[in-house]
Amino acid sequence: MPAVDVAGEFETIRRLFAPLAHPVWGRGLLDDVAVVPSRAGHDLVLTKDAIVEGVHFLSTDPLDTVARKLMRVNLSDLAAKGAEPFGYLLACHWSERCGWPERTTFAEGLRVDQKAFGVALLGGDTVATPGPAGFSMTMLGWVPKGRAVGRAGARPGDLVFVTGTVGDGWLGLEAVQGKLSLDPERMAALSDHYRTPTPRVDFAGPVRDMASASIDISDGLIADLGHLAEAGGVRLEIDLENVPLSAAGQAWFDGRVDAQAALEKLVTGGDDYEIAFTATPREEAALRREAERRHLRLTRIGRVTAGEGVVARFGGQPVAFDRPGFTHD
Amino acid sequence: MPAVDVAGEFETIRRLFAPLAHPVWGRGLLDDVAVVPSRAGHDLVLTKDAIVEGVHFLSTDPLDTVARKLMRVNLSDLAAKGAEPFGYLLACHWSERCGWPERTTFAEGLRVDQKAFGVALLGGDTVATPGPAGFSMTMLGWVPKGRAVGRAGARPGDLVFVTGTVGDGWLGLEAVQGKLSLDPERMAALSDHYRTPTPRVDFAGPVRDMASASIDISDGLIADLGHLAEAGGVRLEIDLENVPLSAAGQAWFDGRVDAQAALEKLVTGGDDYEIAFTATPREEAALRREAERRHLRLTRIGRVTAGEGVVARFGGQPVAFDRPGFTHD
Repeated sequence: MPAVDVAGEFETIRRLFAPLAHPVWGRGLLDDVAVVPSRAGHDLVLTKDAIVEGVHFLSTDPLDTVARKLMRVNLSDLAAKGAEPFGYLLACHWSERCGWPERTTFAEGLRVDQKAFGVALLGGDTVATPGPAGFSMTMLGWVPKGRAVGRAGARPGDLVFVTGTVGDGWLGLEAVQGKLSLDPERMAALSDHYRTPTPRVDFAGPVRDMASASIDISDGLIADLGHLAEAGGVRLEIDLENVPLSAAGQAWFDGRVDAQAALEKLVTGGDDYEIAFTATPREEAALRREAERRHLRLTRIGRVTAGEGVVARFGGQPVAFDRPGFTHD
Repeated sequence: MPAVDVAGEFETIRRLFAPLAHPVWGRGLLDDVAVVPSRAGHDLVLTKDAIVEGVHFLSTDPLDTVARKLMRVNLSDLAAKGAEPFGYLLACHWSERCGWPERTTFAEGLRVDQKAFGVALLGGDTVATPGPAGFSMTMLGWVPKGRAVGRAGARPGDLVFVTGTVGDGWLGLEAVQGKLSLDPERMAALSDHYRTPTPRVDFAGPVRDMASASIDISDGLIADLGHLAEAGGVRLEIDLENVPLSAAGQAWFDGRVDAQAALEKLVTGGDDYEIAFTATPREEAALRREAERRHLRLTRIGRVTAGEGVVARFGGQPVAFDRPGFTHD
């Protein structure tokens, strides 16, 4: 069926996306397919995320940050598995408001981030939709053969670590929705985190070499640790007081009356895109060294024991959560 | 942002999609990523297509055929490059009408076709949208190293071939829109072609071994041959009388007064998902043998000469087209 596309499929590809294509593998986006050489001794790692206007991003969000967030959430999945990304495919379902200026802004976001993270566009599709805009991305990477870090490897005696800080995803959403009152610098930091979270691509190597199980925090720290506990047939015990907060997160937390309720929000909110992982105690020193070399905060928040589920303690007492995490469907 | 999803992301994955996952590489759809071993001596071939309700399929189309068409148009892209498909990733943007029955129907369509074509689900995402439903698929395959057939290899002296029949995509759309009056058997054949076209997956091998340039017919025969002409820096000359029609297509054609105008519709309509390719005359006998072994119609429709563009002749006279093909954006 013919659809009205204000800008046009071929022109969009030629003007905006062809300049982003891998110079060889993308075939100038002219051949319906990308062709990528196998990498000897490696496994291919693939992930695909989709986002929809009004669901995963706001109609008022600038489209360059929408593109960058889409890329970053996909990169985060690969980083948590220890994989090195090399390229992506993209499907754009443009809404009627997506004319040339909006599409150009979207492509500019891709350009900035693909340079920052060392990936290139391999192919995809661009279509018009009469409804809200939607986008999906397939991200590809390589990991040395058999070395992708799964969810299932945590063993009793392992320690639980998290990169960066926790809760900024949820606080960032509150910030862009105008629900927070913090000083402008904090608000900007949180909005930035919401719009362009930082995938821990450069920590994929240490995770691959030293983690026993790993996941990126998208559903919320507690829910994602729950995935590791379930897959591994173990219990993860964490101390909420040890959960690392950003400066903005700390400022917000300090203004709360009920510390436990506030922490609960931060550890169940999701959208953090940090890596939560387990490793044996003998790896701890090396992990800290690798994190320091990258100026990356790394925090030990708990330990793995026999049993099941996640036990979170606050002031030494176990805390029960109404809902362990956020289903962003 | 929380979205209303009548069925739920995790339940949809667990109940409907996990049974379709590759038993090893898909990791039970539980690990955010798929991990696929490299295939030595091969290149990875990737394509991604997206479809939107009301644009690429009708709101009244059964969702099993929507899923199958999505898979088939992606398979068609790989077949035309000579690649052997092995798996796919899927993004579902479910609209509000997509409850359990609709999702189950969609998954059933995938099940039938992934068995028929020897592919397995590797991963993806399922999200809710307040607008019309949309789906995108990334299809992956392998081709022996350096052997993917491009668009650019046609040389003067080569012959132009097409598999199957041409025009059924356009006629099928007319049929499902109630714009045709043919006998019920013809109508059913055309509707079936529109809803579940047949990608020439089993002819990928001969194309890989013998074609100099190749493309699947999605924009329309003339437009897609135009892509081969442009990429190869050559002219493609075809005789419209030789373009193969299906029984239904022939029945429709026989009822037209203006034969040239009718043929023009069929060769510019698109959505055929046959393979149009070029090969040297010395390959013709082997190509015909390989086609016969597969009970596949193969028709020589023209030749490659020096020059540019596509020259289509009818009754020996060149025909000019108002629009060479259909931009399905």
